[in-house]
Amino acid sequence: MVLKLGGSVITVKDELMKADLENITRLAEEVAATGSKGLVAVHGGGSFGHPIARRYDLTEGLTSDRQVLGFARTHRAMVGLNALIVGALLEASVPAVSVTPSSFILAEGGRIASADFDVVRRLVERGLVPVLYGDAVLDRARGCCILSGDQLAVRLAVELEAPRLVFGVDIDGVYTSNPKLDPGAKLIDRLSLGKLGELVEIGGALTTDVTGGMLGKVSEASAAVEAGIEVLIVNASRPGVILKALRGEPVTGTTLVR
Amino acid sequence: MVLKLGGSVITVKDELMKADLENITRLAEEVAATGSKGLVAVHGGGSFGHPIARRYDLTEGLTSDRQVLGFARTHRAMVGLNALIVGALLEASVPAVSVTPSSFILAEGGRIASADFDVVRRLVERGLVPVLYGDAVLDRARGCCILSGDQLAVRLAVELEAPRLVFGVDIDGVYTSNPKLDPGAKLIDRLSLGKLGELVEIGGALTTDVTGGMLGKVSEASAAVEAGIEVLIVNASRPGVILKALRGEPVTGTTLVR
Repeated sequence: MVLKLGGSVITVKDELMKADLENITRLAEEVAATGSKGLVAVHGGGSFGHPIARRYDLTEGLTSDRQVLGFARTHRAMVGLNALIVGALLEASVPAVSVTPSSFILAEGGRIASADFDVVRRLVERGLVPVLYGDAVLDRARGCCILSGDQLAVRLAVELEAPRLVFGVDIDGVYTSNPKLDPGAKLIDRLSLGKLGELVEIGGALTTDVTGGMLGKVSEASAAVEAGIEVLIVNASRPGVILKALRGEPVTGTTLVR
Repeated sequence: MVLKLGGSVITVKDELMKADLENITRLAEEVAATGSKGLVAVHGGGSFGHPIARRYDLTEGLTSDRQVLGFARTHRAMVGLNALIVGALLEASVPAVSVTPSSFILAEGGRIASADFDVVRRLVERGLVPVLYGDAVLDRARGCCILSGDQLAVRLAVELEAPRLVFGVDIDGVYTSNPKLDPGAKLIDRLSLGKLGELVEIGGALTTDVTGGMLGKVSEASAAVEAGIEVLIVNASRPGVILKALRGEPVTGTTLVR
């Protein structure tokens, strides 16, 4: 099973490099309560990732000394956030092991081009819980790119043939329109890939977040749905939701279906 | 060029998980002063690595839940030490990037069995300074093992065809006998692999450290010497020595030769 925790859940928005330790601790305890066997976790960067990458113009490549230092600093920030999450999991007696995306993944044009997940598979088989994250990685075309936790989580779920992929975000799921702007917005319980296409055409119908929005997340996740993986988008900010979702119990959220 | 910093230089011996921040900061500044281009750094674990691995009996495998948690905790401790070193390098404006050995290396019987150093090579080509470390890694035969920074540094130097491999330790080099016990011990300027064999036969002639001793280090390094790499053992505790060694300037120490 793959659990992706959104950056907006584990960090404080608009405060540079501030982790939401309360949420992190609670989520670690929920993961511990599931027994955590067979789990791979991935987390986003929130206020640790993109703000720093942006400051150094990393999207424009890796040519100047300043960008090279920016790549190093962005990675460092993500390592710091990852250490907090792994620390919280270990504190809850979950045998969490940080796995560093930029140490073994190469991208091309922003997409994973080369990655061997053999070590991750073996860690899971040994009873460990690998914890990966969105990271600054080398890119054959652009020099470097920001690999999103969403892309990574979907790829992991597909490669490891996970039965379920849970996205923990800071809203209840995918809505018919932006619930923060439209009081008539309704949560979509089951969203088919066909219906997704319609929503994309309507445009702006899905709420957005810092890493490309719910739309990006759902589009990214469609590869997992195609591979037959049960994909669930739930609110990780609400206590007990991740615990239920990991256990496969009924929970408020959006299930993506073919 | 590959620089290995011994655990005894960057941590305080006999104090669990205590880093020697003074040495770390000074060494980071020496690395910065070289310009740091084309450099790969590796560090040992000192009081962050083996004491924790031992506490959880990791050398006996990865079968009990306790050992699984111990693997995770040992790795976590090493990530913490690595963060201090990468942090000091970044502080000195060296674009250091932590590269996590256990994320892509598999061992077998305690030796590296599978490792793709393509990412490390590309990071160096891009002007970044990868910083690796001795780590708890999965082992096909034993379940897990402690991969020493020495083994890793030698392997990196050979695979990346480094011209020079510098071991920074807490004594001036290899002596004719243990300098801490024998006042007549003499530093060996140039040590041939043949002469090394003799010293091994005499036995106990080389000073020891926690990771298997200078003898282990020199035996490990012989693969690099065979590959035509200049291998230097110098005292990283003395200010300015690593700076000189990296620059290729004359410095007190032991050079290993064929």
